Order: sequence, then C-alpha cells, then structure tokens
Amino acid sequence: MTLRPLLPLSLLLALGGFSFNTIANEGQWQPHQLPQLKAELKSVGLTMPAEKLADLHKHPMSAVVGLSGCTASFVSSQGLIVTNHHCAYDAIQRNSTAQRNLIVDGFLAKARAEELPAGPNVRVYVTDKVENVTAQVLDGLGEKLSGKARQEQIENRIKKLTAGCESDKAFRCSVPAFHRGLEYFLIRQLMLRDVRLVYAPSSQIGEYGGDIDNFEWPRHTGDFSFMRAYVGRDGRPADPAPDNVPYQSKDFLQVSAHGVKAGDPILIAGYPGRTSRYKLPAESRFVRDVSYPRRVADDQADLQVIATATAGNAEHAVRYANEVKGSNNGMKKTQGLLDGFARKDIAAIKDEQLAGFKQWFAKQGKDPQLLTQLDAAIVADQQLREQEFAMAVAMQSDLLGAANTLVRLAHERSKPDAERDERYQQRNWPFYKARLSRMEQSYVASVDLARWQASLQRYMKLPANLHPPGLDSLLPTDLASLHAQSKLGETSVRLGWLEKDGSQIAQSTDPIMQLAQKLHPLRLQLEDQRKEVDGNLERIVARYMQAVIAWKKSQGKPVYADANGTLRVSYGQVMAYSPRDGITKGPFTTAEGILEKETGKDPFIVPAAEKAAILAKRYGVFKDPVLGTLPVNFLSNGDTTGGNSGSPILNNQAQLVGLNFDSTYESITKDWYYDPAISRAIHVDIRYMLWVMQEIDHADNLLREMTIHYPGKPGSAAKK
Amino acid sequence: MTLRPLLPLSLLLALGGFSFNTIANEGQWQPHQLPQLKAELKSVGLTMPAEKLADLHKHPMSAVVGLSGCTASFVSSQGLIVTNHHCAYDAIQRNSTAQRNLIVDGFLAKARAEELPAGPNVRVYVTDKVENVTAQVLDGLGEKLSGKARQEQIENRIKKLTAGCESDKAFRCSVPAFHRGLEYFLIRQLMLRDVRLVYAPSSQIGEYGGDIDNFEWPRHTGDFSFMRAYVGRDGRPADPAPDNVPYQSKDFLQVSAHGVKAGDPILIAGYPGRTSRYKLPAESRFVRDVSYPRRVADDQADLQVIATATAGNAEHAVRYANEVKGSNNGMKKTQGLLDGFARKDIAAIKDEQLAGFKQWFAKQGKDPQLLTQLDAAIVADQQLREQEFAMAVAMQSDLLGAANTLVRLAHERSKPDAERDERYQQRNWPFYKARLSRMEQSYVASVDLARWQASLQRYMKLPANLHPPGLDSLLPTDLASLHAQSKLGETSVRLGWLEKDGSQIAQSTDPIMQLAQKLHPLRLQLEDQRKEVDGNLERIVARYMQAVIAWKKSQGKPVYADANGTLRVSYGQVMAYSPRDGITKGPFTTAEGILEKETGKDPFIVPAAEKAAILAKRYGVFKDPVLGTLPVNFLSNGDTTGGNSGSPILNNQAQLVGLNFDSTYESITKDWYYDPAISRAIHVDIRYMLWVMQEIDHADNLLREMTIHYPGKPGSAAKK
Repeated sequence: MTLRPLLPLSLLLALGGFSFNTIANEGQWQPHQLPQLKAELKSVGLTMPAEKLADLHKHPMSAVVGLSGCTASFVSSQGLIVTNHHCAYDAIQRNSTAQRNLIVDGFLAKARAEELPAGPNVRVYVTDKVENVTAQVLDGLGEKLSGKARQEQIENRIKKLTAGCESDKAFRCSVPAFHRGLEYFLIRQLMLRDVRLVYAPSSQIGEYGGDIDNFEWPRHTGDFSFMRAYVGRDGRPADPAPDNVPYQSKDFLQVSAHGVKAGDPILIAGYPGRTSRYKLPAESRFVRDVSYPRRVADDQADLQVIATATAGNAEHAVRYANEVKGSNNGMKKTQGLLDGFARKDIAAIKDEQLAGFKQWFAKQGKDPQLLTQLDAAIVADQQLREQEFAMAVAMQSDLLGAANTLVRLAHERSKPDAERDERYQQRNWPFYKARLSRMEQSYVASVDLARWQASLQRYMKLPANLHPPGLDSLLPTDLASLHAQSKLGETSVRLGWLEKDGSQIAQSTDPIMQLAQKLHPLRLQLEDQRKEVDGNLERIVARYMQAVIAWKKSQGKPVYADANGTLRVSYGQVMAYSPRDGITKGPFTTAEGILEKETGKDPFIVPAAEKAAILAKRYGVFKDPVLGTLPVNFLSNGDTTGGNSGSPILNNQAQLVGLNFDSTYESITKDWYYDPAISRAIHVDIRYMLWVMQEIDHADNLLREMTIHYPGKPGSAAKK
Repeated sequence: MTLRPLLPLSLLLALGGFSFNTIANEGQWQPHQLPQLKAELKSVGLTMPAEKLADLHKHPMSAVVGLSGCTASFVSSQGLIVTNHHCAYDAIQRNSTAQRNLIVDGFLAKARAEELPAGPNVRVYVTDKVENVTAQVLDGLGEKLSGKARQEQIENRIKKLTAGCESDKAFRCSVPAFHRGLEYFLIRQLMLRDVRLVYAPSSQIGEYGGDIDNFEWPRHTGDFSFMRAYVGRDGRPADPAPDNVPYQSKDFLQVSAHGVKAGDPILIAGYPGRTSRYKLPAESRFVRDVSYPRRVADDQADLQVIATATAGNAEHAVRYANEVKGSNNGMKKTQGLLDGFARKDIAAIKDEQLAGFKQWFAKQGKDPQLLTQLDAAIVADQQLREQEFAMAVAMQSDLLGAANTLVRLAHERSKPDAERDERYQQRNWPFYKARLSRMEQSYVASVDLARWQASLQRYMKLPANLHPPGLDSLLPTDLASLHAQSKLGETSVRLGWLEKDGSQIAQSTDPIMQLAQKLHPLRLQLEDQRKEVDGNLERIVARYMQAVIAWKKSQGKPVYADANGTLRVSYGQVMAYSPRDGITKGPFTTAEGILEKETGKDPFIVPAAEKAAILAKRYGVFKDPVLGTLPVNFLSNGDTTGGNSGSPILNNQAQLVGLNFDSTYESITKDWYYDPAISRAIHVDIRYMLWVMQEIDHADNLLREMTIHYPGKPGSAAKK
C-alpha cells in the first residue's frame, strides 16, 4: 500500500483564501483543559479568554447541551434549542400521521401551544458539574484482584457515586472513564424530560441528499431543527405535562448572521461519542483486518435479507426504514474506515508513535512488564470480541432481543437496586420500557423471522473458534414454529413481562421466552468474561496511558482523552482540503449547488418555494460578499466525531455561525487518527438556516425569539 | 434537464490564488487578428506587442509548426522540435523491436547519428505565407449554379491556386475555407519530409494514466517528446537520407524553467483542427439527439466485436490496440459532448444567440430569405449525413476500405491530374501508399471479417430511410467466403493494385475488388450529393456568417473563425475551475500525485528512478516556491481543441513554459460552445519536462542544445 502524500498545508491554506501559518488542531478537549491551550487557540485566531470557555456555568458552555446521542444549544432564554434535523427525526416522525406528513411538509409551531411532544425518550442534558473522582473510584483497589473482581468493585463505587449524585432527582449522573480507566469524572447533568418539537424544515431541505450524500462533500443539507425544553411550574425537571413551562435558559447562544469566511477561526462544543486515538497498533490492525470487514459483510447480508423480506410491501419497508438507514450509515462509516486504512497505513503511524514512546519509556526504567502485559490483555480482549460478535450474529431477531432483555431485567430485579448491574438499575427502566414499546413501530414478524434464520445460518458458517462454548447446542432448529408460537410480537405482552419477576418468567410457556431463559446463563458467562477481560485491560491500559501522558508532558504537549460522550471543545478554522492531488474540496457550497443536484427524485427534490427563491437569487442579507451567493454548508478542520451532531459552531465572539452535522468520507478515519491534511467536519451555515427560516418557512416567531446579529447593523441584535 | 449554475468567476479567481478581474478569453485567432485584441491580451496580463505575434516570419510564430495532426515547436536553431509524447507515438512504436521496446524503455539519442527515422508519413509543416484569396475563389460564381456545380468550380479554382503555389516543391499549399466558406486563405507551408525521433521518455511517464486518465483531471502525464527536422545539404526539404542535415530553425522558442503560477497569463499557438462554435441550434440538436448517440452506440458495438475477436490472442490484440485506443478516445470525447450537452443546454444558448442575431438582422432589412434557406440547407445536410453514416456502418472492413480506395484512385487516375478530385491528386498518392502499406501492422483477417459481419448486421437494423438507395442489393451475403478468397490482406497485392488503371481493375477476380467496383457508382453518387448539399449550404452559410460578423462588429466585437487546421493563437491564464459546486480542480498537480495514483499496473506504473527521486524530493531548481514541490501538469483557460496537441504554452516573454496535450472532460463541449467557467486545457509543466530530462533520463545533450532560463540566474540562459 502506497502512503498517500498530500498537498502541503501551505497550498491548502492558499486555496482556502488565507495565508497565515496554522497548527494542526487535533483534540477534543475537556473545557477545564482549555486554559492550557491559549497559544494554540490564538494561533487559529481565537482570542476570547480560554478561562471563559472552561467555566461550565457560564456562557457559552452552559448553553451547550446533550440530546440523546446528539448535541444541541440553547438559543433563547426560553429553553429554545437548535440541533440537527436528523437529531429530531424521531420526534418529527412520531408526530406525523397519514394526513399530516411532517417529514416532507416540515413543521412550524407558530405559538407555544402548537409545539409537539418530542417523544418519551428525548431528554435534554445540561452539564452542571464535572468532578474528578479518580481517587474515589480507584484508590485502594488491590493489584491482586482478578479482572472481574476489579471491574465489579469499580462498578460498585461508581454506582454509589451516581446514587449519591442523583439523590436530587433533577439530575442524571454518570462516572465515565477517561484515558481508558486512568481517570474517572463524575458528571452531573440536569435532565429535562419534557422536550417538544418547535420547528423542522421539510426533509427536502433537512435531509437533502439523504443517504447518497451522507459522509460526502459537496453537501447541501439544511440539517437543522428546533426544540424546546420544558420544566414544571416549580422550575424543576418534570415529566411531560400540559401545564409545564419553558425552561429558563439564562445562558444561550447569540446568532451571527454574518457567518464565516475561509480561514475564520471556529470553536465546536459538544458531546463526541467515542474515538480510538490512543488505541494500540495491534488494536487498529484487528479492526482493519478482522472485525470491520466481518461487520461490513454481516451488515450487508442482513440488509439484503431485509430488502428481500420487505420487497413489495411498502408498510413493511417503512417499519424497517430506520433500521436500514442506521445500518447503511454504520456500514458506510465502517467502509470509510477500511478505505481510509487502505489509503493511509494508520497502523504503521501508530507503530511509529509507539516506537517513540517505547524509546522514551525504556529510559524511565519503570514498569518493565507493561508492554508485554498490554499485548496479552489486548489479545484476550480480541478473542472475546470474536465470540461476542458471533453471539450477536446468532440472535439477529428483535423478538429474541426483547426476550433476552426481559429475562435479564427480571434476573437483576431480584436483587436490591444498589447491587444490580448498573445498566439494569431502576433509574434506567424507563428506557427499557420505551424501547420495548417502540418496537411495535419497527417490527414485522415475517421480516424478523427471515433475518433471524439468515443470521443463524451466517453464524453457523463462522469458524468454530468463534462460537461461544455451549451456545450451538442451545440454538433452536425450527425458528419458524418458535417464532409463530411466541406472543412477544404484541406490545402489551412485552410490557406485561416487564412487571414480572424471575420465577414468573421461569414458568413462561412462550417459546422465545423459554429460549432466552436457556441462553441466559451463557450470556451472563460472556458478561463475566467481559468483566474479567476489561478489568485486566483497564488496569494495564491505565498504566500505559499514564506513561503516555508523562511522555507527552515531557515534550510540553497537553493530552486530551479519547471521546466518551462527555462535554468537549475543539477548535479550528474554516478550511478546504485536498482529497487527491489536483483537487480541492470546499470550504463552501452554495445555493446554486442545490439546483445542480436536483433530480426531482428523493433525496434530490427541491421544494418549489426554495427553487423559486434560488432562481430569483433572493438571498437578502444572507448573501456572502466573497462567494456572491448564499452559502449552504461549509467545512472546518474542527475535531469531531459521532455525538457532535448538532454541535454549535461558534465564532470568535462565541456566537452561533453554524451546526456540525457530518464529516467527509476521507476523514472518517479520524476516529483512529486525526490527519490534519484531510480531517474535515461538515457544518450547515447559519446563513442558510436563517434564510430557510425567513424565506421559505416564515419562522418569524423564532427569528424574533433569537438574538441575531445581522450584517449592516453593527452591534445591534434584531431581537424584538 | 436542469441548467447547471456554476461558481461565480470571482470565487474561482480567488481559489486560483489571484483576484484581479479578467475577461472571458474565448477565441482561436488567426495571428493577423491579434493586433485587434490588444485590450483583451492586456486584460489577462499579456503585454508583449500584439504585432509581434501577428508576423508569421518572426519569433515566436515562426517557431510553431504543424506535425501530422499535432502541433510542435522548434526549440533550437538545429531543427530540434518538441511535441507531445502521443504525437510521436507512431514514431516510437515503429522503431521498437522485440529486443528493444522504446515505448516502455523510452529513447534518447545522445548524438545526431543515433536519431531514428520518425516514419514515412511524418511531416513538419512550417507556415510560411497566409494570403486571403477569397476573391480568386468566389468572385463571379453564378448565383444560379447548382450546389454541385458551385462546389466543383470552387474546387477547380482551389486546385489551380494550390498547383501554382506548389510549383516550388518545397512547399505544401492548401486553401481552407474560413467561416464555412465566407473566406478562403491560401496557406503555404514549408514541408520537411525527413523527421527523426530524438528523445521520448518511457511511456510510464509519457503516457502515465493512459486511457483511464484521458480527458481527466487530476492528470500526471509527461506527455512530451523531441524530434528533429532534417533537410538536404542544399537546405531544402528532402526525402529521408543519411546525409541530410538538420533544418536551420533560426527562430526557436527559448525555455523558461521558472514555469508559471496560478493566474499567470499564457499564450497557446498551434493548429486546432475543427470546432463548431458558429453552427446553428438545429445543427447542435442533430448531433446531440441523433448523430452522436448513434456514433457512440456503433463504436461501442464495434469495440465489443474487436474485443471478442482478439480475446486470448495477444498478437491480434496488439494489432488492433491503436484502433481500440483511437476509438476509445473518440468515444470518450463524443460521450463527453453528450454529457456536456445534458449538463448545459447548449442548443438553448445557441437559440438565444440566434434570437439576438435575428432581431438585429430583421432591422437591416436585407436578404429576407436567408434564414429559411439556411434551415432547408441544414435539413438537406442532415438527411445526407444519415445515409453517409449508414454507408460507413455497412463497410466496417479494412479490406473493403482498401479496395474502395484502390478503385477510387484508379478511377481518378484515368483523368489528367488537374481534373482529379483534389483528394486523389498525385501530390497525395504517397499518403495512400503509406496507408495501404501500414495496414499490415493493424490487420488480422479473422478480426476484420468479424467486424464487417457485425457492422453489416448493425446496418441492416438501421431504419430503412437511412439506407442509401440501391446499396442493400449490392451488399454481399456470404462475407466469409468473399473475405477468404480475397488476396488484399497481402501488402504486396494492395500495393500492386496501386499501380493499375481502371480497366485492369475492372478485370480483377478478387471478390473484394469486384465488390468495391460494384459499390463504386453508388459511392460516387453519394459524393455528388455531398457536393450538391455542401455547395448549397456553403453559399447560404457564407451569407449568414457575413451577417453574423457584421452583427458582432456592430457590437465592437472581433470574430474568430471556427478552427480549420490552420495556425491560430489563443490566450488565457493559468486557472482552476469548479466542475461542481463545492469542488475545485487544479490549477496544478504535483509529483506526489504521481505516487498517489501508482498501482504498479499499467497505466499506473512509476519507473523506479522516478519513484526514488520523488520519494527523496530531489526537485532541485524545478521546485515551485508556492506549491513547495514539483509541478507536473497544469490547467489554463486557453481556447484549444484537437490539433492543439503539442502546442507550446508561452509566457509573457514568449518563452516555453509547457505543452498543451488535453482538455478536461467537462470542457469537451467547447468544440460547440466555449464556457469560460469550465473550459480548461491541460498542459504538461515545463519544469516536469526538464526535471524528467535531467533527473530521470539524463538528456544533458538536449538540455545543452536548448536555451533555458533557470531560476536564480536572472537574464542568463544556460546555453552552452
């Protein structure tokens, strides 16, 4: 494989329209780290005080919230939040009816009373406190503990910390590991449970380009929507209720309708989900050579089964649309990783980094067994992953999945709450209930059976060493009759079992429930093995990461932790990139490009009103003076990953200038390695958002509610 | 079909790295027109005196020569010329042997004596005189003449002018029509007949990317080679002979190793072949809707037949390699035209232009029948084209083609030379002889038969109204036995017939010769119809073009004629372009991009020496200060077409900075409509050429022979 030489950064900068030097801007930083990065922030042109960004209780960080796997921001004092269209998709879909297709038509509540429930699972999380609790989690753990025992002790300590923190029911707390277990932080978040849909443009704007354009540039997607968080009359989080009132979000983002130009500095705040930047060469080779290719192949096979099983039945196809969409998205991402690994030998880069570390580490003369132990722990992890993968393949059935959940829950419920596995504690039951209930919208018995039959055949073809010992003899042979006799396809039956305890479940005559019962010990056994493996791995990786941080520190380099769903900040510039020698992509797309892609067929249908406005070039104040037209999307080298969907893009005044919603195909590998030459995130330009709101959807009430700085009105915000 | 909006030029310029205003630089100008264009030349940054460019006898125009369908330039006083690698391909191939593969190995004559004959058909044409002879060609032609009679009168006058001009055998003369018959110019060219191959890099450099990259950007092709023109000891053109001496080219191009940067002005001189810029909307619709799609389909079918017929036989495949290459090239170009027509409604643009003209023309109150007559003449032309196409499809056989040529030649030879059809006059016989001889390298009986059988079947499926009346009954049914019995596959037999007259040919027992005899009257009849149609069309189009020129003149706009293989100059700037919103291509590619494309398989094999030099970044003085690396190819908006292959790219000092060799896929439609936003020509950068010569091939003798201005040596040329 040839290493792929890239255009020198100096040329890229020239192409991007600016010429000062810049630095690689890798990093998803915890807000408290930002004061260490003053020089770096300044080098990209960010001059606002870093201390201001470090304070979770102050603007702008206090305005950046979590939203069920996405990020969102308050944009008014009345709990109004802006996020991606795709982050509100479920909310839009669930409010659609045969008569009123909000997905295609879009939705705008002209008054509070018209706002629609976003759904029982939608929560807004306002990060309130981040406390380093590493000592409480790790101190005094015996080094001699088995991996499993260590893992369980940590879990118990975390459960106690969480329970203490959640004694005020307004909060949701968690204790995520940083640096793979080197550090633990207690995160306290205000959890707002009454969230309502306020505004979403038509999917012909919000999803323009659909799956075809997903991960691609050039992009022309108006991927934005608005929701509102409500609380009880007492100002505290409350279940959805008609007399709730808007959450008072004293800190909210102001909006700059000036937008950005190539080279402008930007900040991105949000809740990135998961990265693997510090994983070892062996771990990257494993995903490259083993687990990713196998996952892509299995997903493809499953998608083919769904396609065949739903063919000719529009109702069935709709029920699996989300599953297919999610699977396609995941597959494209995994394929992007594989393509990226093929283009650039990231394992070799990690080898080189590791060699540098080893050289330094050897000189320290400490912990001589570390790297050998690390290798062994990684091998154990990979072997177990193989079996876990096989296990999942064997049970590609929502029906069996529901039964497994019910059996597992009943098993845990037999213990006092504090002793339960954290995932199954009472605080999480509402999520299980919602999931088991929601299944009715995405389940068709015949399709589920076909998927399961096919996946079981695929399982059988996997190498024998992947089969978890004991599983094969438990697997049923006649899935069809099992499936036909089960009543778990009925929502009331599933929810009924949710109330039952272990002994009642043991007496179930439902064949799928009986199968789940039989599988249960083996599943627990795999969970225990996972604890053992993870406990060992974390103990060793934490030592490794500690040494890595010391090594970096010796070079004067601060270290950010891999993403773990907690609040992070990254910074960068509006910047084009070169995917291949002689080609430059970005940094902007324009309204004319929307019509360039128009085919009149989904996902390239342009609403008539939008088309007319573009043809008439009615861009008003939103016209960019350099581009001479309306910007739609833009690229930056901000460091993002999944979970950053909906993240606000902030200018140097911490004003909102866009929303993050995707990354380019070439930069998918940034989950493993941030390549400054090609890593680019895709943002929807604030000017396109405001233009759609004003020109197409006449969302005047929202434009009035926000504080917007328009060009030509220096210093004045058009708030009424 | 949606009109494709493009990035505003202002943005393109910004992306290209410069920001002053520019003008659309359409036009392939006759040198004598350049003094009219001073303002335009200045607007792109060209400040050299336009008068200097108008003089054919002075540098630089006197250094720009024709070379069998390509363009070349003298680059030393000793007849050394530089052109494209693909323009020298036949010369390289014919000198290759089983032991010595010059194509892959490249070739360098270290001394004059080592230079190799380029081949009997290779001629260098030095344009010596261009004289407006419109009056001599057209004056006094009766308006009442039939189209055919008019055409024949014009042909006779042209033959006389040509014969007079060629009384000195050193010259080749021609009288091409400009503006479709409005004007005629007598062109006198010194014809140098002894041309030798001096240097060609390996095809792994000269053809890097091959057919895959043909018409594409990014491009990384070192498409250059060197030849030398020889003359007799008396200094006059002579047939190839060992004691010939190099032609003394007193005017030759100096070379600038400084190269160019984005935004730099450039001039392109050369012999563009054929454009259709002034053709009417109906003519563009005909090619778009009828003739191009049909041609692509027929070419595809023929290529499929060749592929099947040569499958598994490397020797046969090699014989048809050039045919396949040429056909692929033509098909890609035609498909590019169709794609371009689909992307942009060029017929609609021509409609709009025509409407503007009509409005002006109506006010003049002259020639009220003109446009009606024009429409009718175009329809007649199109109907005949349909039959000519069908005729060609019916005879897709080199064997039959040879027989047709022999019969036609014998027929013409029975007349005095002056009365012969111009194409078959004695002066052209050497070309026929060469072609009939060369057929042995590209002919396999079984393949030829398969192509003919298949093409005849395709002919039979064409609509009946396309079949030339009388043809069907003449066509043989048993091609196989006919083919088997013919001796025309033998070169000596073909050349033997070349000496025979009509009566001898009439007695031939060769069945293919007999068939050609039977077809002959019908072929003559189609030729006569073509004369009638062309004679009428030209008479009317000339009036139309005269009016168009007057209309443009009334707007103060000079008018260039469509390309017709005569010496032209175009001008422009080094410039990127946007093929789609959000993407920019060019203006440069770099050496690193060569390795980026490397696959180790043809056409992406990088010679080891080149790879090592790139990996070591041994770029020396050829490193571009902005790019920070070695430029390979670049784009300009210079107006080119086929025939401009090998054209010198000149800087503001008329120094050589590159060679034209291709156009981007998106700009193929420029043959019909020059779109300033996307029309880009592809050039090989002089720095890459010099670097390959110095670093890879050590062509020190040629580097010494040329006058090269190197960076760091201001004003001094490294000539020794």
